[in-house]
Amino acid sequence: MRVLEKLVIVGVGLIGGSFALALKEAGAVRQVVGVGRGERNLRRALELGIIDAAGALDERTLGDAELVLLAVPVGQMGPIMHAIAPWLGGRTIVTDAGSTKQDVVDLARRELESSLARFVPGHPVAGTERSGAEAAFAGLYRERKVVLTPLAENDPGALALVRSAWERCGARVVEMQPREHDAVLAAVSHLPHVLAFALVEQIARHEAPERMFALAAGGFRDFTRIASSSPEMWRDICLANRQALLAELDRYRGGLEEVRAMLERGDAKALEALFSRARDARAQGLKNVQ
Amino acid sequence: MRVLEKLVIVGVGLIGGSFALALKEAGAVRQVVGVGRGERNLRRALELGIIDAAGALDERTLGDAELVLLAVPVGQMGPIMHAIAPWLGGRTIVTDAGSTKQDVVDLARRELESSLARFVPGHPVAGTERSGAEAAFAGLYRERKVVLTPLAENDPGALALVRSAWERCGARVVEMQPREHDAVLAAVSHLPHVLAFALVEQIARHEAPERMFALAAGGFRDFTRIASSSPEMWRDICLANRQALLAELDRYRGGLEEVRAMLERGDAKALEALFSRARDARAQGLKNVQ
Repeated sequence: MRVLEKLVIVGVGLIGGSFALALKEAGAVRQVVGVGRGERNLRRALELGIIDAAGALDERTLGDAELVLLAVPVGQMGPIMHAIAPWLGGRTIVTDAGSTKQDVVDLARRELESSLARFVPGHPVAGTERSGAEAAFAGLYRERKVVLTPLAENDPGALALVRSAWERCGARVVEMQPREHDAVLAAVSHLPHVLAFALVEQIARHEAPERMFALAAGGFRDFTRIASSSPEMWRDICLANRQALLAELDRYRGGLEEVRAMLERGDAKALEALFSRARDARAQGLKNVQ
Repeated sequence: MRVLEKLVIVGVGLIGGSFALALKEAGAVRQVVGVGRGERNLRRALELGIIDAAGALDERTLGDAELVLLAVPVGQMGPIMHAIAPWLGGRTIVTDAGSTKQDVVDLARRELESSLARFVPGHPVAGTERSGAEAAFAGLYRERKVVLTPLAENDPGALALVRSAWERCGARVVEMQPREHDAVLAAVSHLPHVLAFALVEQIARHEAPERMFALAAGGFRDFTRIASSSPEMWRDICLANRQALLAELDRYRGGLEEVRAMLERGDAKALEALFSRARDARAQGLKNVQ
């Protein structure tokens, strides 16, 4: 990948900020301009050297940008696309970091119609429960997966540039269809988040939750860590991927019915078989996953 | 606490082995004798200095023991109590580390009738997903909670000794009723385990699980870590605490119904409110919990 002259990050949080830092560390970008609603966060991003300048959704910022990363919650993706569309230069390549892909693709077809050849949808499968520029770090994407869901209309050069930018961040890029991406993420990410939020809510609703939390051990802490994630972001993701999430949730409810029946009838053999299968599947499945 | 002359550990795994190591490190025990079904594990415990000798469930091992810790899966608690009862010395104090308490108390009333004054039920709320003597370490209980559920029949001296032994391990001891212990643990430990096993099972049942695991990020890994726990142990716990677990599971199924309805009707406000409440409750609840 040639060195990018100008990268614009819309939304300089954990995801956008870490992308900028990683490319800077790799010597892959000359200038990073940050755009965002929070002035304080942008100032912090400047202080931390994540961005070199603060910009706006206007011609001056976007007209000569080589690459624009939209790293905002999926609920803001539509308005942001609408706002940038008039100012994108004829060579500007746009990508996003949205956690869902079919809805982003649908929005892009509506809002970025004249730049579709240069819009490459993406999703870096990485993150922590922390957010904001303060949380960004150059190593976030190292050995992590980034899913690209290229459009039939995509210019091969645009796809190649986005791919190599992520590779310079240390990520491993895979390509798939938006629907497949959304179905997989519903199962391995969106459903677990809902389950963790629901469990904490259940304990909070008990009569004396502090007595219960007091006996929570490391397992509970790990299990519920994702319930510390941003409520706004997860609200958006759940709604953006509602159909796939509902399908996984219903499958899960069916699974719980089965376990419930095993417990009810005291079926030691079935419980042990289920737990063993799950333990082995996890060990096998995560063996080669960072 | 005076130095214990002879401690017997029945079940020299992560829990029993760590108890022995912690007391040794604290200079609180002179001799530790280990008993267990696995000869290889006992040999390893000897090599690692966890125990000083291997014993058996007989008069020689138990007759002059000051303290006996039963650190076996709850499913084995009944037969073990039955086996030790005839050989316990008149001053031998017995405690256990079972993850459920009401069933252990019921078993003790049946099997240890003549030694009830010196049987103090307990549960160290600590552990990792690893098991066996190999996994034991002296620091496991540092700053962790240990719940004791003393019997009305308990000799105060027996309770004091068990309490101070755990305190010498660095643990913080709390006392509660067996039923309350079981209800709390069903919510913060047993249910999460069942939920994690069920989620991994769901992914394993998909057509191409390896494609799904490949996109599992840190959140999934943390959420499902407890699904790497021992299937036999968790089968026993689930059955031993079946009533409380079923109650929490049904509460959870009700909670999922509510979330499902929010998703179905696209209720952004309700989803965000739920996620926010959960995030705040977790932050608040775990603030002072190690």
